[in-house]
Amino acid sequence: MLWVPLMPARSLVEIIASKRDGERLASAEIERLVEALMAGELADYQMAAWLMAVFFRGLDETETVALTEAMLHSGRVLDLAAVAGVKVDKHSTGGVGDKVSIALAPLVAACGAVVPMVSGRGLGHTGGTLDKLEAIAGFRTDLSAQDFVRILGEVGCCMVGQTAEIAPADKRIYALRDVTATVECIPLIVASILSKKLAEGIDGLVLDVKVGRGAFMKDRGAARALALALVRVGTRAGKRVVALLTEMEAPLGVAVGNAVETREALDVLLGGGPPDLVECTLRLGAEMLRLAGRADGDAQALASLKEAISTGRAARTAERMIEAQGGDPRVVTDLARLPIAEDEIVVVSPRDGYVTRVDALAIGLASVAMGAGRTRADQAVDHAVGIFIDRKPGAKVARDEPLARLRVRHRSSSQDVVERVQAAFSIGETPPAPRPLVLDRLDASST
Amino acid sequence: MLWVPLMPARSLVEIIASKRDGERLASAEIERLVEALMAGELADYQMAAWLMAVFFRGLDETETVALTEAMLHSGRVLDLAAVAGVKVDKHSTGGVGDKVSIALAPLVAACGAVVPMVSGRGLGHTGGTLDKLEAIAGFRTDLSAQDFVRILGEVGCCMVGQTAEIAPADKRIYALRDVTATVECIPLIVASILSKKLAEGIDGLVLDVKVGRGAFMKDRGAARALALALVRVGTRAGKRVVALLTEMEAPLGVAVGNAVETREALDVLLGGGPPDLVECTLRLGAEMLRLAGRADGDAQALASLKEAISTGRAARTAERMIEAQGGDPRVVTDLARLPIAEDEIVVVSPRDGYVTRVDALAIGLASVAMGAGRTRADQAVDHAVGIFIDRKPGAKVARDEPLARLRVRHRSSSQDVVERVQAAFSIGETPPAPRPLVLDRLDASST
Repeated sequence: MLWVPLMPARSLVEIIASKRDGERLASAEIERLVEALMAGELADYQMAAWLMAVFFRGLDETETVALTEAMLHSGRVLDLAAVAGVKVDKHSTGGVGDKVSIALAPLVAACGAVVPMVSGRGLGHTGGTLDKLEAIAGFRTDLSAQDFVRILGEVGCCMVGQTAEIAPADKRIYALRDVTATVECIPLIVASILSKKLAEGIDGLVLDVKVGRGAFMKDRGAARALALALVRVGTRAGKRVVALLTEMEAPLGVAVGNAVETREALDVLLGGGPPDLVECTLRLGAEMLRLAGRADGDAQALASLKEAISTGRAARTAERMIEAQGGDPRVVTDLARLPIAEDEIVVVSPRDGYVTRVDALAIGLASVAMGAGRTRADQAVDHAVGIFIDRKPGAKVARDEPLARLRVRHRSSSQDVVERVQAAFSIGETPPAPRPLVLDRLDASST
Repeated sequence: MLWVPLMPARSLVEIIASKRDGERLASAEIERLVEALMAGELADYQMAAWLMAVFFRGLDETETVALTEAMLHSGRVLDLAAVAGVKVDKHSTGGVGDKVSIALAPLVAACGAVVPMVSGRGLGHTGGTLDKLEAIAGFRTDLSAQDFVRILGEVGCCMVGQTAEIAPADKRIYALRDVTATVECIPLIVASILSKKLAEGIDGLVLDVKVGRGAFMKDRGAARALALALVRVGTRAGKRVVALLTEMEAPLGVAVGNAVETREALDVLLGGGPPDLVECTLRLGAEMLRLAGRADGDAQALASLKEAISTGRAARTAERMIEAQGGDPRVVTDLARLPIAEDEIVVVSPRDGYVTRVDALAIGLASVAMGAGRTRADQAVDHAVGIFIDRKPGAKVARDEPLARLRVRHRSSSQDVVERVQAAFSIGETPPAPRPLVLDRLDASST
């Protein structure tokens, strides 16, 4: 039998015009756009025009699911069927001092979930997990899919970088968004994040949507809208998804850099670490365990995580993962094996008072200026330099007491960084109101 | 002395984001975008994103002037200082059967104004003046700037095609708009039209903004907004500008095609021609004469035009122009020298009644299907085929009486066209209310 279409397929230009005019696109049309882009039938300038139209008109949930899946299926989707257990991952929208992943993956794996984690590199004021991990001598993040699956099965967690095979359409579209002022668009952000995460072959995903001065989302309303869209679209794509909205006005934890952050994250696995970092790690870990069906409620999940730390199981899982990935596992218990620049500069308070604010963006940019980060994707980073925030918001400080310490390569050329770090601190006469770390929690039932 | 800028120049991406956010761009920023595009520093996909942002946010008058001038100065501006007299041109936004320019240029030149006319080719349902002129054996429209200026000085008018030297940025941007669904945007249309027309070195411009089924603007409100923007921006760019809004529901005149339209336009110069075509030509001509300072009011201008026709001066000017451009001047008085396909098909009325409507778009598309037009810019046209509308709206018709006649190459393969043309006619029981040809007139004082 001959199939007679009711309507002829619209041209690619008609699809662009349709979105421009605020119409809902059919999922098949969004799929066609992405496929045509990758096949060279839709030009970059046509995709750019469509992206700008989406910036103004938005995509509804069904359209965003279609875009996510089209980008996901532009590349390879990992098949983790050979690995027993429920696979869960965490994704953070990025902040300053955010080293949570490094503690979280082995911690959650030590509690029985499987954590296949694909991370990124630092760019601009935010650091990247891969850069931090590579501060461990020998640690490799460029594993083959085969090795990734094998280590996941043996250890329960594995942390690698994105390969060219994963969601290549996202890579292409993100490069366009970056230079066409179409980055700040929730459905496009959602599709970009989820297409990459779904390619990991996960069952569940916990999102850490950061909000504040050091985050991509400065505004809480916008951050909540992003979190909700991520949860809803991820759920529609068949995954268990939860999001936490977490504070990113000041850096997370004390250390900002690469090796210094890895030290601090591994310290959490040993029962140490700054309180905010510990809280963030445990809260996200608890959500992952619940998604993985390894705990019935928060209390049980937290108890399980704390037990993994106190018994040393979490630290041993980290050692096994580091060893499996070619790194020196002794760093876990001997943090001094991580590199650190020898020269220390102390940044002191100009007056008596309370720290009312530590500007995460300013600290992040200072750390880039020190060499810990990059402003272009092709730059190398210095693993050994970093900043320690000695006084976090709320701390009392006397004049000339330390606010922060910098570990630098060249003391003589660090004056600019010292000034930036000092300027990042606001000192007031009264302590600021304490701010909760977790601002909100969203799951599939949220509206 | 060192010049210290108050603000660092914004990056090209920041300029795109600024328009995206609804901000007014500085004229220098718009100039930078266009220059960067032509220099290869701004990619096509960035310009496409900006164009879509402009679609949503618009450009105000000052911004549109800046875009017009940036596109104008991307190429050569003709210097007509060597030609005495006030130079005026007419631009039509395009319709079906619109052969006005062919009569208008020699007619207005015969009354003492100088008419440097740069015309286009047909595309889609609308024909193009160049295609119609080239139906005259030997007629060349690809003259050098030198020949153009010389003929203008000798004859008072010259009709050529756009060269690659004229507003190349417009050509580049238009090609992008065409495939990114950003054509239908008034400030972009205004800048595109005016940048090309201003490059002719004119002092004044009369715009014929067509409105209706066969026009680019289907809606009268939108057409008036376009006309007003053209007048205001053109005036701000230092030109005398007037616009007429004219009816384009049905084709203008009787003939639709190439040679058939040229015949009809030349017939106007001999004192003949269908009443609506004569009216349109005279009304636009009167505006051109007034802009050129060759008449004080409409009455004087119309009298002058009619005298140029009745004395034969207009026809002689046409002969001189055609001869100067390599064509056979005998066509003017011997219209049979223009080619016409021999086979005639008569399209008859299916019933008694009055013609209530002749769908200009349907007739235009039928003429393309016959070979008189093109759907892609690289196609050739058949000069000899065409359609005659025997019954215009309001005409009484009996069953089996002719509605239209087609001149075709191959009678056997014309059934589809015959059906299209027949379907373009609506026959009712009562005559429709008469519609004025000129719907509105706008000048620099209009709001």
